[in-house]
Amino acid sequence: MRCVRFEVNNRAKIGIIEGEKVRTVYGSLDTFWQLTDEVFPLSHVKLLAPCVPKQIICVGLNYREHAKEINMEVPAEPILFTKAAHTVIGPDAAIIYPPQTKKLFYEAELGIVIKKKMKDVTPEEAHKYILGYTCANDVTARDLQLKEGQWLRSKSFDTFCPLGPWLETQLNPEDLSIKLYLNGELKQDARTSDMVYNPYEILSYISQSMTLDAGDLVLTGTPFGNGEMQVGDEVVVDIEGIGKLRNTVAAHK
Amino acid sequence: MRCVRFEVNNRAKIGIIEGEKVRTVYGSLDTFWQLTDEVFPLSHVKLLAPCVPKQIICVGLNYREHAKEINMEVPAEPILFTKAAHTVIGPDAAIIYPPQTKKLFYEAELGIVIKKKMKDVTPEEAHKYILGYTCANDVTARDLQLKEGQWLRSKSFDTFCPLGPWLETQLNPEDLSIKLYLNGELKQDARTSDMVYNPYEILSYISQSMTLDAGDLVLTGTPFGNGEMQVGDEVVVDIEGIGKLRNTVAAHK
Repeated sequence: MRCVRFEVNNRAKIGIIEGEKVRTVYGSLDTFWQLTDEVFPLSHVKLLAPCVPKQIICVGLNYREHAKEINMEVPAEPILFTKAAHTVIGPDAAIIYPPQTKKLFYEAELGIVIKKKMKDVTPEEAHKYILGYTCANDVTARDLQLKEGQWLRSKSFDTFCPLGPWLETQLNPEDLSIKLYLNGELKQDARTSDMVYNPYEILSYISQSMTLDAGDLVLTGTPFGNGEMQVGDEVVVDIEGIGKLRNTVAAHK
Repeated sequence: MRCVRFEVNNRAKIGIIEGEKVRTVYGSLDTFWQLTDEVFPLSHVKLLAPCVPKQIICVGLNYREHAKEINMEVPAEPILFTKAAHTVIGPDAAIIYPPQTKKLFYEAELGIVIKKKMKDVTPEEAHKYILGYTCANDVTARDLQLKEGQWLRSKSFDTFCPLGPWLETQLNPEDLSIKLYLNGELKQDARTSDMVYNPYEILSYISQSMTLDAGDLVLTGTPFGNGEMQVGDEVVVDIEGIGKLRNTVAAHK
């Protein structure tokens, strides 16, 4: 099932995708909800980020080929960092190029939204805590990331976490194609099976240290092929079984 | 004014301190609220963490003497990192010693709670965005911090951010005594005037990159004198003009 957040007549709603239509749902995505009779053509609504995470926990260097690409060792344990709350934007929204950087990079990633409170969970049980999957772009000011020891700031400028187009709730994440197109040109092209730690291992590892809550977002790392974006560019993350997340890059005002 | 969150008869409430009493307040601390006639003796209520931050943004190496102590350069710009949401505990609650570390360290810090949405604010204007100040303990698994490049995990085990005892809303933060006692023995003893970046500069710097929201918490770094805690220890952070935050250390179950 594909769950969306969307805006119609300036009101935010949640719904499910039915072909080329979206049906409004009453409730919240992570608790009890029921279908309504309200249906809109998908082309008439504005899709929003499919979740509004309180926390975004990310894993670094989690694809073998990407670690090679930037001459770094595959980590002995997952590397965890965060992105700030105001990084989240939805499909078609603009990534704002901040004045502090000269190297704005895309990073296609598989995003996992947590279904319920999660602590000390094994990899075998982790699937029970997953609400769904979405496409994410872990936008990074690469020059700041390389200069600053801690990655928070270089990854946390407002608009640095495009998400969408929806949450796919039924998906086996272990061997999906993950691609990124910049202005129509294929730049990243990998499979999630190249991950060093798979989604279940990542969630389990995080939950051994910190409690995750319903709605929290976990980003699972980016594959080989990172590169730069410029103002005016169009960037598309395309994950098999989910869909395409499209965004543009705009100048800072 | 001193604003508290507290629990009485298993219900969480907010209030203000009046001498040895607490008066319940109707509303939320960061928006409109009004006094009620409900008053409890302070000794009869259980104080909770004075805020429930969505985000905790922290500054590293922000006291000159502490940077010397660990042989690190004073940073050219503030070092930013985060602590996860479930780190927050209130006064007298137990810090849980996790099995993954053998070096559990205390770090006394001045905490700032944000009053309203804050983006691109100058140091001169930053004071208008501060709701209040509280004592914080930025508990850190030092062995994991030194081993792992990113600091998130070593600082984000559940219970690693004791806060309290309340928010002090009227305070000049620029030259306050900040002390930490371990089992009654003075371990950290500094003044906030030794900060490399003062609270207003820190908030301004963060707001140049990321939007802060009402209720977000900013921790301003720890002074000289860091050290280890053991199960059974009592740790007290004491900041001039605020009060004493007391916690204990308990074994992981």
